[in-house]
Amino acid sequence: MSNEDVERYRTHEPENLHERYAHRAAHMKPSEIRSLFAVASRPEIVSLAGGMPNLTAIPMETMASIVEKLIKDHGQEALQYGSGQGHPKLREQICDVMALEGIRANPDDILVTTGSQQALDLISRIFIDPGDVVLVEAPSYVGALGTFSQYEASVVHVEMDKDGLVPEALRQAIKTLRYQGRKIKFLYLIPNYQNPAGVLLPADRRTEILDICRREKIFIVEDNPYGLLGFDRPSPNAMRAEDSENVIYLGSFSKTIVPGFRIGWALVPQALREKLVIASESSILCPSNFAQMSISSYLADQPWRDQISSFVELYKARRDVMLETLDAYFPKAATWTRPQGGFYVWVTLPPEIDTKAMMPKAIVAKVAYVPGTAFYADGFGSWSMRLSYCYPTPERIREGVKALAGVVEEEIQRRNTLRLN
Amino acid sequence: MSNEDVERYRTHEPENLHERYAHRAAHMKPSEIRSLFAVASRPEIVSLAGGMPNLTAIPMETMASIVEKLIKDHGQEALQYGSGQGHPKLREQICDVMALEGIRANPDDILVTTGSQQALDLISRIFIDPGDVVLVEAPSYVGALGTFSQYEASVVHVEMDKDGLVPEALRQAIKTLRYQGRKIKFLYLIPNYQNPAGVLLPADRRTEILDICRREKIFIVEDNPYGLLGFDRPSPNAMRAEDSENVIYLGSFSKTIVPGFRIGWALVPQALREKLVIASESSILCPSNFAQMSISSYLADQPWRDQISSFVELYKARRDVMLETLDAYFPKAATWTRPQGGFYVWVTLPPEIDTKAMMPKAIVAKVAYVPGTAFYADGFGSWSMRLSYCYPTPERIREGVKALAGVVEEEIQRRNTLRLN
Repeated sequence: MSNEDVERYRTHEPENLHERYAHRAAHMKPSEIRSLFAVASRPEIVSLAGGMPNLTAIPMETMASIVEKLIKDHGQEALQYGSGQGHPKLREQICDVMALEGIRANPDDILVTTGSQQALDLISRIFIDPGDVVLVEAPSYVGALGTFSQYEASVVHVEMDKDGLVPEALRQAIKTLRYQGRKIKFLYLIPNYQNPAGVLLPADRRTEILDICRREKIFIVEDNPYGLLGFDRPSPNAMRAEDSENVIYLGSFSKTIVPGFRIGWALVPQALREKLVIASESSILCPSNFAQMSISSYLADQPWRDQISSFVELYKARRDVMLETLDAYFPKAATWTRPQGGFYVWVTLPPEIDTKAMMPKAIVAKVAYVPGTAFYADGFGSWSMRLSYCYPTPERIREGVKALAGVVEEEIQRRNTLRLN
Repeated sequence: MSNEDVERYRTHEPENLHERYAHRAAHMKPSEIRSLFAVASRPEIVSLAGGMPNLTAIPMETMASIVEKLIKDHGQEALQYGSGQGHPKLREQICDVMALEGIRANPDDILVTTGSQQALDLISRIFIDPGDVVLVEAPSYVGALGTFSQYEASVVHVEMDKDGLVPEALRQAIKTLRYQGRKIKFLYLIPNYQNPAGVLLPADRRTEILDICRREKIFIVEDNPYGLLGFDRPSPNAMRAEDSENVIYLGSFSKTIVPGFRIGWALVPQALREKLVIASESSILCPSNFAQMSISSYLADQPWRDQISSFVELYKARRDVMLETLDAYFPKAATWTRPQGGFYVWVTLPPEIDTKAMMPKAIVAKVAYVPGTAFYADGFGSWSMRLSYCYPTPERIREGVKALAGVVEEEIQRRNTLRLN
């Protein structure tokens, strides 16, 4: 919020409005990403900030005729209210999609949601009392952190390395928290091409983490929007494939088809299903039949696996350009992850650099990124940043990373000069 | 939930699952309507239970070409993520729609939601701490009651008569609750053709209720899905037209266009807007660009006011048939409302009749309704029921009401016989 916004806000605030809010409203604050997007979306800026999928590969003519035909042939159903749990046919097709990552599921255990964000919201609603602990990777997805915080969770980050969450760090965190008498509700993680770190959790760590959580009676919330976007080989099986009782699995069509329909899903242990459906009905009544049936037609009649392959080629080429340019131009003092899929590279600078304070200089150099603190609930991450290669053209990525390299180089030198003086 | 379901639920429940739930999860229970719909949707049953709009009047060819053209011309935008607050052009058009009911609004103060149910959810999230009081009409919309209950509100019903909420009853309720030290967060009401009672709140009562709430510093949440569906004359101006500071207004395209896009909105006092947008982003990230732009194209290029007139004709004819049949066949001991718009008639039977217990007999007679208790948070309403005339054909309505008259007649006689013995 700019100062001007704050001013305007205050001027018009009805008397004592904040006194009427619920306690949780204090946690409804704009995310760091949010204020950034207005700036980053200006056309002269190369945005390495956003996580928007690249839709240039989508066959628009085909999509247009799918939705046209859907309304002509099934308008009375597609434009009507639908089931709170989601369209039965789509839930069956979702099982086929998940089978690609080793999951065997019953369509009855799936809830279709308005993007997987809604699933995160509903799971938080069912499980989180104020003060309950949610374990997350360090760093973690900004949208999940925002939701957990609105439900007044105490978010605890667990160490990652280049192979994702570190099982021993998880054990230690649980032990410490239990010793403190804290109530741990679930572990939230993104095993494939993590947002924001871009790393992949190998199969053996998956098994180890599943064992730890099962033994400690902590649910795992496995968020998997990028799982089918592996560049050189398929991702390891989903964690849900190994454990159907202790894993809540979240999927999404936003990165494999398009985000504009806002269709995601949760696959949950059977015992949880009814509560989840009721929570969703209370939240949105029902997901859009029209959006669900559009996705369903697309899956039924189009070569959707080939389409995912096109996405993979497109993102892989962009990842290559980003890594090449980082290797060629970024200062030696910086390190970064080397993603094997997905959208993101995570860059770590020397600890004296504050990436949030550096942002205005980057904007002047016509490049934007997301400062690392956005991905921590605890203020950590100030010398890191997330770079996305999903959306811009390869040329723009090269241009943006080169510009950013200059900004970082200058900032490091400025810090060195300050220290020497 | 059937006994069999309960059994299945228990068998598969992971150890102590309920102990891991948040406190609020205890309030996530299936609504009375929910279990009913499976039965009521069987083709041989005349369902006077549902509130589904009648889409026979919708020009499907036109809708099909709107969505086709939208993707062909603007696919890159329509299928991408959008603004958390909602599409700017649609928010402007929503202002034009609301102007029909006397509202002057700034598009900046509108949040587009996944149906107005989501707006209810977000407002509850911002305002309701456990135990806070929410005032509602007696009876009130079942979907709102469910949401308030999930946020652990204490719902207090305020008396209605054939002209809607009784201002003096509101004054008394506030006085009593304040005397008890209770915290009242807002008054939720549906001034036009109320769901479930079908009554209309006249202009003078609107002004009086606005005065009371302003003086007592209680927000009004004005839910207005049916306002443009007045049968003989336009509805009085919206309450929001008179008070832009103390009214949160909820609108929906579900009954004036189609529900399948799941597009509603909230118009809020400026000071509330940012919190609402943040809460929505945390809940669903953003509403569907595709659905919003479809509605936007329809509003821009189609004679949508004529379309609403067709809806009005269609519903009015059905209302007439329902009232005629009630007048002709229902026992004298019953009374009912005479709606001037919207979808519903509220029937009151002698107090010894239990409409929930009577349901199986109605199903045998091939007719379904919603028992009155569904619309009360406090178990009241057992001798009333909601009849919808929106969806079935006039012939089916006649048939259903006649069948129901027989069931009610028999039930009254059975009760009389029991009493005489």
